Amino acid sequence: MKVYLDCLPCFLRQALEAARRVTADERAQRAVLDAVALVLPTLPLDATPIDLGREVHRVVRDTLGVDDPYREAKRRDNDRVVALLPALRERVQAASDPLLAAVRLAAAGNAIDLAVSSDVDLERTIERGLEDGGGMADYPVLRARLACADDVLYLGDNAGEIVFDRLLIERLVALGARVTFAVRGRPILNDATKDDAAYVGMDEVAEVISSGSDGPGTTLGACRPDFLDAFRGASLILSKGQGNFEGLSDERAPLFFLLMVKCPVVARELEAPIGTVLLRAPRS
Amino acid sequence: MKVYLDCLPCFLRQALEAARRVTADERAQRAVLDAVALVLPTLPLDATPIDLGREVHRVVRDTLGVDDPYREAKRRDNDRVVALLPALRERVQAASDPLLAAVRLAAAGNAIDLAVSSDVDLERTIERGLEDGGGMADYPVLRARLACADDVLYLGDNAGEIVFDRLLIERLVALGARVTFAVRGRPILNDATKDDAAYVGMDEVAEVISSGSDGPGTTLGACRPDFLDAFRGASLILSKGQGNFEGLSDERAPLFFLLMVKCPVVARELEAPIGTVLLRAPRS
Repeated sequence: MKVYLDCLPCFLRQALEAARRVTADERAQRAVLDAVALVLPTLPLDATPIDLGREVHRVVRDTLGVDDPYREAKRRDNDRVVALLPALRERVQAASDPLLAAVRLAAAGNAIDLAVSSDVDLERTIERGLEDGGGMADYPVLRARLACADDVLYLGDNAGEIVFDRLLIERLVALGARVTFAVRGRPILNDATKDDAAYVGMDEVAEVISSGSDGPGTTLGACRPDFLDAFRGASLILSKGQGNFEGLSDERAPLFFLLMVKCPVVARELEAPIGTVLLRAPRS
Repeated sequence: MKVYLDCLPCFLRQALEAARRVTADERAQRAVLDAVALVLPTLPLDATPIDLGREVHRVVRDTLGVDDPYREAKRRDNDRVVALLPALRERVQAASDPLLAAVRLAAAGNAIDLAVSSDVDLERTIERGLEDGGGMADYPVLRARLACADDVLYLGDNAGEIVFDRLLIERLVALGARVTFAVRGRPILNDATKDDAAYVGMDEVAEVISSGSDGPGTTLGACRPDFLDAFRGASLILSKGQGNFEGLSDERAPLFFLLMVKCPVVARELEAPIGTVLLRAPRS
């Protein structure tokens, strides 16, 4: 999808949020806001929000002189969800349709998105995930496609959230699929990297690869050749989160988007209200 | 209160919202965003949000070449609430404490604040106003002070909202008070001016004066001498809305603030959750 003008104020809000993670010095926080404000008029609108988010967060890092403002937040979120993993696994196994329960939880886990909110109620996230919120109408399509797809490319999104992804991947593996789990090429926002994937034991259930993307989502122009080979060759791709949707929504590929709708422009693009725990099958 | 850094992204959001009211041309909207983005780094932080809002909306108007982006929205909101006035008046009269009901409705009417949201559900606003949401603990203080205050200075806030104010002023007059209703000195955001006050018949129940303020709230430094005389001489001031609170919260005066808490920084200042329909008596 193309960037909306609404994204520009949101980038400024994200910059402040990132600065506050690194320093309590209001002058330093202001310097980050000012640097981003001066960059906003230079950003092209014929790009995706991911392309522009990459630039904005580069300015944030350069102004702060910090490589990863979200390091501690990511560790904390990984720890929080890992602690819940055994109980979550039991709930999935006890569900009447364990795959559907795992799909729902993985989408709900996308609530852990520090681009949108720094305050996520995990208990509520899990309960909302297990409720029937009307966003799973495409689940039978996924189920049918999985039956004839041996290889699944799974595009991860955020730290913490990837523990919910692990739970879904365990179900996919139990159904006989071989899963490749792709992460960002460098730390950006709270997006998961190889370090995060290793931390939650993702390599026990999937092959973990880097997309090479240094934006807060996947845009093919920013990806590594080996990832592009995996993307082009995949018979089924599960794309997690708003960021990957923003970067890939215009691609022609066997893409299932799995996310929680959290911002007004993504809600408009997907024609689904904010808060929807959503699976969207390929429209072609 | 002093401006928070959080206000800067919010100013950019307001600028986009104002631009969209005037033009559907995305390049013109972008020009407004760019102009405001370039001004943000020049704004001093030792000012109130109202002082900075004044500058931001001046840039918005200058870039659009339009004197009042909110003219139609204000007319529509005045009309919407005027149509409800007879029914609202009946509900107030039927309440066990009509003054309290009118105070609550006036605070709830502050939901009509286009600085925060362009989409206000009036029915819900009214029902929320009449519920006991816990924000009226200071009502006995107001009631006691009204008993010994003949003259009330009432600081209006937004168009549409002023119809709820009229309802409260009718109760104050019935209790024997003489009310002066102050409006902004020029159109800014959807704030009420003399035109709006005349449109809803405010002059039938109060003397209407201009504060002279050209910001989206009252800051004494921007006000006319005759308003300052009224302010300094008042034995009781009812200040409506977030904007007047932002501009006056540090003044020593017999100020009762009556508003709906709608943004995180005002919520922090007032130590009350977003959504609270609040009356706050002078703390001194």
